[in-house]
Amino acid sequence: MELTLDQEIEQLKNKPNATTRIVSDGMERHLHIPKKVLDHGFVRVVDYMGDDSAIVQAARVSYGAGTKRARGDAGLIRYLMRHRHTTPFEMCEVKFHIKLPIFVARQWIRHRTANVNEYSARYSVLDREFYVPAPENLAAQSSSNRQGRGEVLDGREAFDVLEILKSDSLRAYGNYELMLSSDGKRGLSRELARINLPVSVYTQWYWKTDLHNLFHFILLRGEQHSQFEIRAYADVIATILGDWVPIAWQAFSDYRINGFELSAKGVECVKRMIKGENVTQESSGMTRREWTEFELAILND
Amino acid sequence: MELTLDQEIEQLKNKPNATTRIVSDGMERHLHIPKKVLDHGFVRVVDYMGDDSAIVQAARVSYGAGTKRARGDAGLIRYLMRHRHTTPFEMCEVKFHIKLPIFVARQWIRHRTANVNEYSARYSVLDREFYVPAPENLAAQSSSNRQGRGEVLDGREAFDVLEILKSDSLRAYGNYELMLSSDGKRGLSRELARINLPVSVYTQWYWKTDLHNLFHFILLRGEQHSQFEIRAYADVIATILGDWVPIAWQAFSDYRINGFELSAKGVECVKRMIKGENVTQESSGMTRREWTEFELAILND
Amino acid sequence: MELTLDQEIEQLKNKPNATTRIVSDGMERHLHIPKKVLDHGFVRVVDYMGDDSAIVQAARVSYGAGTKRARGDAGLIRYLMRHRHTTPFEMCEVKFHIKLPIFVARQWIRHRTANVNEYSARYSVLDREFYVPAPENLAAQSSSNRQGRGEVLDGREAFDVLEILKSDSLRAYGNYELMLSSDGKRGLSRELARINLPVSVYTQWYWKTDLHNLFHFILLRGEQHSQFEIRAYADVIATILGDWVPIAWQAFSDYRINGFELSAKGVECVKRMIKGENVTQESSGMTRREWTEFELAILND
Amino acid sequence: MELTLDQEIEQLKNKPNATTRIVSDGMERHLHIPKKVLDHGFVRVVDYMGDDSAIVQAARVSYGAGTKRARGDAGLIRYLMRHRHTTPFEMCEVKFHIKLPIFVARQWIRHRTANVNEYSARYSVLDREFYVPAPENLAAQSSSNRQGRGEVLDGREAFDVLEILKSDSLRAYGNYELMLSSDGKRGLSRELARINLPVSVYTQWYWKTDLHNLFHFILLRGEQHSQFEIRAYADVIATILGDWVPIAWQAFSDYRINGFELSAKGVECVKRMIKGENVTQESSGMTRREWTEFELAILND
Repeated sequence: MELTLDQEIEQLKNKPNATTRIVSDGMERHLHIPKKVLDHGFVRVVDYMGDDSAIVQAARVSYGAGTKRARGDAGLIRYLMRHRHTTPFEMCEVKFHIKLPIFVARQWIRHRTANVNEYSARYSVLDREFYVPAPENLAAQSSSNRQGRGEVLDGREAFDVLEILKSDSLRAYGNYELMLSSDGKRGLSRELARINLPVSVYTQWYWKTDLHNLFHFILLRGEQHSQFEIRAYADVIATILGDWVPIAWQAFSDYRINGFELSAKGVECVKRMIKGENVTQESSGMTRREWTEFELAILND
Repeated sequence: MELTLDQEIEQLKNKPNATTRIVSDGMERHLHIPKKVLDHGFVRVVDYMGDDSAIVQAARVSYGAGTKRARGDAGLIRYLMRHRHTTPFEMCEVKFHIKLPIFVARQWIRHRTANVNEYSARYSVLDREFYVPAPENLAAQSSSNRQGRGEVLDGREAFDVLEILKSDSLRAYGNYELMLSSDGKRGLSRELARINLPVSVYTQWYWKTDLHNLFHFILLRGEQHSQFEIRAYADVIATILGDWVPIAWQAFSDYRINGFELSAKGVECVKRMIKGENVTQESSGMTRREWTEFELAILND
Repeated sequence: MELTLDQEIEQLKNKPNATTRIVSDGMERHLHIPKKVLDHGFVRVVDYMGDDSAIVQAARVSYGAGTKRARGDAGLIRYLMRHRHTTPFEMCEVKFHIKLPIFVARQWIRHRTANVNEYSARYSVLDREFYVPAPENLAAQSSSNRQGRGEVLDGREAFDVLEILKSDSLRAYGNYELMLSSDGKRGLSRELARINLPVSVYTQWYWKTDLHNLFHFILLRGEQHSQFEIRAYADVIATILGDWVPIAWQAFSDYRINGFELSAKGVECVKRMIKGENVTQESSGMTRREWTEFELAILND
Repeated sequence: MELTLDQEIEQLKNKPNATTRIVSDGMERHLHIPKKVLDHGFVRVVDYMGDDSAIVQAARVSYGAGTKRARGDAGLIRYLMRHRHTTPFEMCEVKFHIKLPIFVARQWIRHRTANVNEYSARYSVLDREFYVPAPENLAAQSSSNRQGRGEVLDGREAFDVLEILKSDSLRAYGNYELMLSSDGKRGLSRELARINLPVSVYTQWYWKTDLHNLFHFILLRGEQHSQFEIRAYADVIATILGDWVPIAWQAFSDYRINGFELSAKGVECVKRMIKGENVTQESSGMTRREWTEFELAILND
């Protein structure tokens, strides 16, 4: 499959076409080229529509003759982002080819406003590719956060875990092939044989979404509480976004990723602190966990 | 506004760019050029993603190594359409700039899976453009169908109706301007002044959707029970589709537009008829209306 | 229509049924009773599913055996709201019957994740009811905000505006009836005659959505930059929410409505201010408008 | 978990509440009671909104004063179904608690217009429950249909397959527990340990959707080309629908499930056949596969 893909990409890259559509030079450079993620996965831009100027163009339809061109494109995009005028961002669209483990795909698919064509294991045979974490990512269960990771496993324990993950997946795959085989027997249907495979097996899909929903994906899946494995994909996509829609990406970073949402209590605390009061968790009215998040965002250097 | 648009289009048409994305030559010819609809409306393709080959490409991801290339692209697309495998059609996207009366926009917006940026009458002043039907479209209320049109109005009645529509809309617009005017007074806010305008006033928007949802739009809004005025837009878009995705369009025409959905009773009747039985409405078990539709589709030449 | 509705409501209120579903006593008191909005509009709860406990119930499915019941329901709901774990809020659903002017309906319908059945002016004749603002709501165009309202109009100007709105809508309705009339003529079809009516005419619909999307509606349409007329509906719905899901509503008020979203620059400014620095717009790095919003939220008492 | 559920259900069933909402007696009987599906799965109605009368009620809002009550409720519902007026069906909502294998969940989740809360294997430990097909469902790969099942496996082959499925899943689960264990070591985080489990492991979720989308689910997942295991769930839900909305269900059966969609070519063939012509695949203009489907639907007894 890799080989076929390589040939296809060569062909595409060597055959530029003329269009009078908006072209993003930053995105053309990414087009068709798989970016490696995890041990066997990748993200590959298959197609796109629009760029920063398409956001501006759509916003100017809304504002009509009323838009003073005085405010430049960057100013307008930042204004839209700050005020959550999200519809102009929906005017950009992107289509990815993604290879990813099933347990990552299961988190990913929860983003409903997207179009998906996934490889069918009812129709075709899955490849022998399983996600096995790198030793430095073999984290213990967090003791403070029920859905998080703690410290990295020690050598011996790590070694044992990797052995289990590898041998169990290989055995499962071997038995998958055995059950499928019609050598001297009927051979189990593909749709049943695959139920023996672990959720670490790789699948692939085409995934198409608009920029607004992609930002939302990045916000949720790129943040620190998200599972490391899907975050790895979000990080790669974030890099691509920076080249595709640099102004919108900067605004998104400033107003969402690196911003902080104060609650009503948070606003009160900030007001008191600015006046010089020494506010503590106890006097803040926040729960311990909420205070910790507040402290981290507002009081740390 | 028209003038600015013309200049913008000239610039775009004269500035082709290089891309390694899929390019549809049929669609490039439509790009940017407004197609006139009704008296002041238009449909204009602003951008697009994919073509027939993109549908095939996405379907082949699903089928993986299992796809025999024996079946050509057209065969595959027809298979997908027949079996309502709709996701590959979602892999094509198109963005239109549309100018349309508000009462048409209100029907249009019910198609929820789309992205929209509409001209804001809170922000800017609406143009003095109202839909006034051509005399041959001035239809009387249908006597048989509560939500339909009957015969065309006679000369005198038609004349009176056109006079009313023109004079009422002009008066409403004159008063709109009067209320807005801050000449010697404050001037009413735009968001309030516009409530005086009739639903025949033209608005405009960018509207972006995928091919699957666009087909659904054409099916619902292009059929005979749809109001003539939105059908006029659906017809223009249908023409564009024929040039953009000719294979998918043909399949859609064959399996949806020109097909007919038999009910369980319809299947029974067809079976009996093929055996030579003379089935009537009474012996069909259908209601009168259902039978009429059945007769029209199956028995007419 | 009003009369029929009254009778229907009487019947419903007097016929309680037994169910083993979750029942919200706070919501049962609102059920079926129209709450007046604007001059002729109303909001009426037709049906609902779930309450605060349904949010908790759904969240506990996600957390499974891992949920320590130590954290009470309120704590859990506040945690979900703070961390934007939105899916449990989607587990509550509500259906409203709403009567509203068309220009409000046009803003409302942009919330796409909802189910709608609207009165059809193709099928039936619209009532002679138009929104005419109360004199105290007749605001001038804002001089600082292109899509906002400024001061209230003075007596004479207000009087003139009200006269225009009333007489134009009555004339339009009179002509609507005239065109429809088949007295001695064919009578124009309903779908065409209605194009003469202004967007201030009242329509009505059933509107069904889930609690997460309803919160989003309230956030966008209940805030100060939203047009007064749709805000009036959001305010009434907000009151109902307080009785239906009091804990979720409180969390939503604390974390969304009365919170404030700091940008990266906002976070920096707050840190500097807490350290005692006197930050101004110039030294903040914010635009004038962004600074004004920041000042209003963080520095005002 | 089962035990807790049983207690909870007892409590709920014994505590009927008064409501003035629409109550469906047919649905009340299903409420809270798990219906067994496959070896460890179930479907359980948690809550619902509306019934047949709610569909009628919403449709009558659209038609307003124009609705002649002459056509009874059943007639109206059948009319809506036949003409694909789908919005009134969206006015009914239902919430299920479902336990299902992950490979079934992955097909199910593709239905995007629904609300979901799934058990989190990042947060909690999964139970030792795996789907193992009953011997009579151990089908070989179909030789004619790449994504289908053929004949049932013979005794020896079936025995071997079952042994593999059982032993591989038990080994995977044993190693899952081993990796999680912090007995004398750190213990791998839950979100990583679970990647060793096969897609036959059971998960559970709350799933909420409207009746229109549920019908669509039944149509796609209940038909013969759908994988047997998800069809088992669709069949159980179909039974529940028959009790909840008997009129709508009957209309759906007549117009969708038991109907047949003729293509343009199919319409032509039917016309020719009714006139007495003996049409064959060759003279039909259909592909072999299309003809087979046509023959099966129209010509068989």
